[in-house]
Amino acid sequence: MVIKVGANAIDSVSPRGDSSVFNSRIRRVRRDLEKNNVDGIVIGGSSNLFYLSNLRSSAGFLLVSVESAVIHLVIDFRYRTAVNDLLEAGFTPSNLEVVIVEGSYEETLANIVKDSSVQRLGVEADHMSVRLWRWLSERVEIDLVPVNELVERHRLLKDSYEISILRRAGELLACAFQEALGAVREGSTEREVAQAIDQIIGAKGFERVAFETIVAAGPNSALPHAHPTTRLLQRGDLVILDFGGVLEGYCVDMSRTVTVGPATSTASRLHQAVREAQLMAMAAAVPGVPLSDVDGAARSTLASYGLAERFGHGTGHGLGLDVHELPRVSRPVGENSQLTEGDFVTAGMVFTVEPGVYLPGYGGVRIEDDVLATTSGIDVLTPSTRDLIQV
Amino acid sequence: MVIKVGANAIDSVSPRGDSSVFNSRIRRVRRDLEKNNVDGIVIGGSSNLFYLSNLRSSAGFLLVSVESAVIHLVIDFRYRTAVNDLLEAGFTPSNLEVVIVEGSYEETLANIVKDSSVQRLGVEADHMSVRLWRWLSERVEIDLVPVNELVERHRLLKDSYEISILRRAGELLACAFQEALGAVREGSTEREVAQAIDQIIGAKGFERVAFETIVAAGPNSALPHAHPTTRLLQRGDLVILDFGGVLEGYCVDMSRTVTVGPATSTASRLHQAVREAQLMAMAAAVPGVPLSDVDGAARSTLASYGLAERFGHGTGHGLGLDVHELPRVSRPVGENSQLTEGDFVTAGMVFTVEPGVYLPGYGGVRIEDDVLATTSGIDVLTPSTRDLIQV
Repeated sequence: MVIKVGANAIDSVSPRGDSSVFNSRIRRVRRDLEKNNVDGIVIGGSSNLFYLSNLRSSAGFLLVSVESAVIHLVIDFRYRTAVNDLLEAGFTPSNLEVVIVEGSYEETLANIVKDSSVQRLGVEADHMSVRLWRWLSERVEIDLVPVNELVERHRLLKDSYEISILRRAGELLACAFQEALGAVREGSTEREVAQAIDQIIGAKGFERVAFETIVAAGPNSALPHAHPTTRLLQRGDLVILDFGGVLEGYCVDMSRTVTVGPATSTASRLHQAVREAQLMAMAAAVPGVPLSDVDGAARSTLASYGLAERFGHGTGHGLGLDVHELPRVSRPVGENSQLTEGDFVTAGMVFTVEPGVYLPGYGGVRIEDDVLATTSGIDVLTPSTRDLIQV
Repeated sequence: MVIKVGANAIDSVSPRGDSSVFNSRIRRVRRDLEKNNVDGIVIGGSSNLFYLSNLRSSAGFLLVSVESAVIHLVIDFRYRTAVNDLLEAGFTPSNLEVVIVEGSYEETLANIVKDSSVQRLGVEADHMSVRLWRWLSERVEIDLVPVNELVERHRLLKDSYEISILRRAGELLACAFQEALGAVREGSTEREVAQAIDQIIGAKGFERVAFETIVAAGPNSALPHAHPTTRLLQRGDLVILDFGGVLEGYCVDMSRTVTVGPATSTASRLHQAVREAQLMAMAAAVPGVPLSDVDGAARSTLASYGLAERFGHGTGHGLGLDVHELPRVSRPVGENSQLTEGDFVTAGMVFTVEPGVYLPGYGGVRIEDDVLATTSGIDVLTPSTRDLIQV
């Protein structure tokens, strides 16, 4: 693979979205600058960069300031064509000025910052490395101010452009699951089934899988983060399938659990408990309710089955440009932790609801759907049967 | 997908490697501490953590200090089973003390640091975020010292344990290429071919692909970082195939270019130039020679074909636990940049040699192999024909 200047992540693909979408996002970021006591911010986290510029790149910086209407996008020559396509189509925020890297990204960024009027520059505390922070601090001779999750907190509430993509992606993923069932067979290995699922996800039109597909059979299904192995699917196994796809940059993610041959009574009972826990959690997801109560609803349902101790993870996570993003749908972090805006169910949030139970040595069950919070409750984005299917 | 405490990356898989491998690595890191004027270091970069502890995790910290023989490994409950398996098998460094996270990773790490005798603590400047840096600085009340690429510089020279894995992985990948040729057909889409390659890579025993497989046909082959599209392979297309696999945590990566139907004279000429450039680069890779000269050999060969301007990327990159790591095989960074140890060909280095030429609107050619530098020259790890194959 040809080396990338910046690292991991993805280059640009077919552009979508008109400038009004991005202008509104930039406007909200600008409004936040004052609150954070800065007059400019450098965006370097790749999902945040995509969110604000519509350029998907493995490297780059965006400089947004209070004073200047111009937004600077620093990228290297490899993205020249992609960004020109976006500009020509009008698929970027207005007033975007593209600066192609000369020398290094860092030097180019430093020069733009020095040429700007910014005096207190916000940087993304989660995305900037200590190395760049120290280098830049010395180089630009203005105050650098670490800022936490500024863009992430906007990404928490999806706009209509994002919701339309996520709805389509969710429906495609549900279809992929229906097809995938044909590949879950006694005698196949977990890995073979995972590969078949990956192929179906690709054939449905997803750009790629959102994460390494999980196919965990028998005792392996008791490990929430199992990797597909060469274990053969056997009669009596519970099999957890957990898979996701990326469409136009947006991730969807679902899980179902099936049995190979008739379900044992234990399997049926576990499945019923998890299914009920998921329904109760969804029912609890009403605007204004703390997300920890959504988690609590799943947890107390499982407790009523005597399975409280068998549910080791949170009930869900936000998803969008990242497969894990805000909000958190889990237990309250601490007794005295202050809840903030993003901790309550709010129309526009998209998150998973995925309770599970895991009996070490025996197996586990997880049922996961993606939901969109609306003004009245939730819409399930991944509509598909939640019965315990026998394969 | 169940949320992961730490983020991305991979959980543990089948353990290998006895403690002597890891003890020797830890010893080298300890020796470096004094040079860096610290008496301890926190390792948090996930590949570095795996390199030193043999635990593959998406989260965790390792604390190595001068004073204490004990190495602390901070991980959360999800890795308890995996790490116990490693400990029982003797597949970890000696004196490893496992600390399971209570509360948060950060709090647990801070407590261990406070309980240690460390007074000047090195942190990995490239891997620690500004957020953690600032929080920890305040919390532990000792000096934090950013350290650059300390573990990466050791990873640059592969030990015999790593070389044996990389040799096997390279051979498997070359076999995968031979099989993949069967899937490169006129009328297939780039995406279909990419999916077939991914499946073959899985079937060969790789844990996963090392990066998103590139299948770029016709004009798309002129984009070094093309993503597979729904474009159909057409007669006359040059098709670049660039793919990699991960075996026991180690990445291998190769590229070949084929033609659909008979090669045009332009295609043949481009291919011949790149092939010769690759051979000349390999011939230049003699111990003690600057790696920039290896790049230079490819570059001047292409220049002799009048293609100097058509080769926009570096000649190669190191690979191992990461698909891109040290060393760099590219032009010298600056006129006055000081070359250091890692900038010269040295026995034990593993890197790609992958010149390419790209004619916008027409297409491109890239040929890439992984090589191991030995005391006399290089061994090709991905042995496979470099002829321009017609499919």
